Amino acid sequence: MQRYFLKANVEANFTLDEETYHHFVTVLRAKEGTKAEFVQPNQAVVIASLAAITDGMATMQVVETLTSDVELPVDTTIICGLPKGDKAELIVQKATELGVNQVIFVQTAWSVAKWNDKADKKIARLQKIAAGAAEQSHRTRVPAIKYAPSLAEVAAMPFDHKMIAYEEAAKTGEQAQLAQTLAAIEPQQSICAVFGPEGGIAPQEIEKLTAHGFTVAALGPRILRAETAPLYWLSAISFALELAQPQH
Amino acid sequence: MQRYFLKANVEANFTLDEETYHHFVTVLRAKEGTKAEFVQPNQAVVIASLAAITDGMATMQVVETLTSDVELPVDTTIICGLPKGDKAELIVQKATELGVNQVIFVQTAWSVAKWNDKADKKIARLQKIAAGAAEQSHRTRVPAIKYAPSLAEVAAMPFDHKMIAYEEAAKTGEQAQLAQTLAAIEPQQSICAVFGPEGGIAPQEIEKLTAHGFTVAALGPRILRAETAPLYWLSAISFALELAQPQH
Repeated sequence: MQRYFLKANVEANFTLDEETYHHFVTVLRAKEGTKAEFVQPNQAVVIASLAAITDGMATMQVVETLTSDVELPVDTTIICGLPKGDKAELIVQKATELGVNQVIFVQTAWSVAKWNDKADKKIARLQKIAAGAAEQSHRTRVPAIKYAPSLAEVAAMPFDHKMIAYEEAAKTGEQAQLAQTLAAIEPQQSICAVFGPEGGIAPQEIEKLTAHGFTVAALGPRILRAETAPLYWLSAISFALELAQPQH
Repeated sequence: MQRYFLKANVEANFTLDEETYHHFVTVLRAKEGTKAEFVQPNQAVVIASLAAITDGMATMQVVETLTSDVELPVDTTIICGLPKGDKAELIVQKATELGVNQVIFVQTAWSVAKWNDKADKKIARLQKIAAGAAEQSHRTRVPAIKYAPSLAEVAAMPFDHKMIAYEEAAKTGEQAQLAQTLAAIEPQQSICAVFGPEGGIAPQEIEKLTAHGFTVAALGPRILRAETAPLYWLSAISFALELAQPQH
């Protein structure tokens, strides 16, 4: 069933906004009685049926309220050094499927890409990709996509658990940090991880982050590409907290 | 350091094959003393230094033998319904980074894509992608990429543990199967999972596979795309066996 995100919570009847009307009625040719799922800002999901179209306004009637719990039990943020080409789009799409709550793209020392003046436009486009992926993967929340011009800004942000995915850690045999963190994390706590761009994270950046309470963690013994590491991290969080030791 | 796969095990000195010579000497302009890593068919890795170039032949001298253990502690196979567009390439590249040993693309009932006569050419191209990704992620093994014209052929293959990633299982709240399997698996045992194409796996296919000992498993409560599910599964295996409960 098609899924849409609503801008306001709804009662038993509601009308569609212009964009949803266009997709549901014009593109999908919904008729009276056609149903769709609608996610409210409070994350409750309702199934509503098209009741009437009058003067270009579609009135929907709520026929069922779903109780679903498809969000990760912790609040996840991935912080990615600006990647090359269209890798940012791949990261946003896949991380959204895997349950991320926030993606921050950050200019790092060894980022080849520079966003500068293009950042607003890029973030707007990535936010749309996140919304589409959230609908497809039946999320009840659309991740927030942001840009930070420096790691200093990111380092000062408050999170309950702060990690750096660092491939040098893999080479020295560090393997325990992620599992230890996930064994200790409490439901609804926030956790973030910094991922380098293709060129990696500079040693002085590691120093700055660890001075702010970030810990270095390996994601297994293989070298993962910049866009693969966040997907591993999110998959591991889901496996550890939703499948291996369910927290809810 | 650049990494190459050798076609035969080597002694203290060896000469480069044509393809490796072209990349190392012509493209990378290696000089006497330039080093690279070479993975032997027995998976041992040596560092060798360019000793001499004579008559278009490059002689390498082994300077160090590495002891590395970057392969997953179990033998993994992903079996993917033929995906659309270039998704097969994405799956092969990312699954190789994540440690897969074998990827089998299979014609399923609801595959929109058909390979038929193109299968040999596609597999050859995907095998090259696997080799490149194995080098980049410092694997000691290049995954085998194969094609199967029917699920019946796949269902009869011998594996110690056989799973189906099935999104309908997620909807009914199945969450324990993958964790239970990974808690029970022994080092070096083989494990495979079947992943549907975009349209999913048909109920009669699920029946056929379960009759052959496959068990249905969910990969968390969110709906993952065809190309994302295998990456989640491999990440979870790495996390469970390499980070959370190291087997080696």
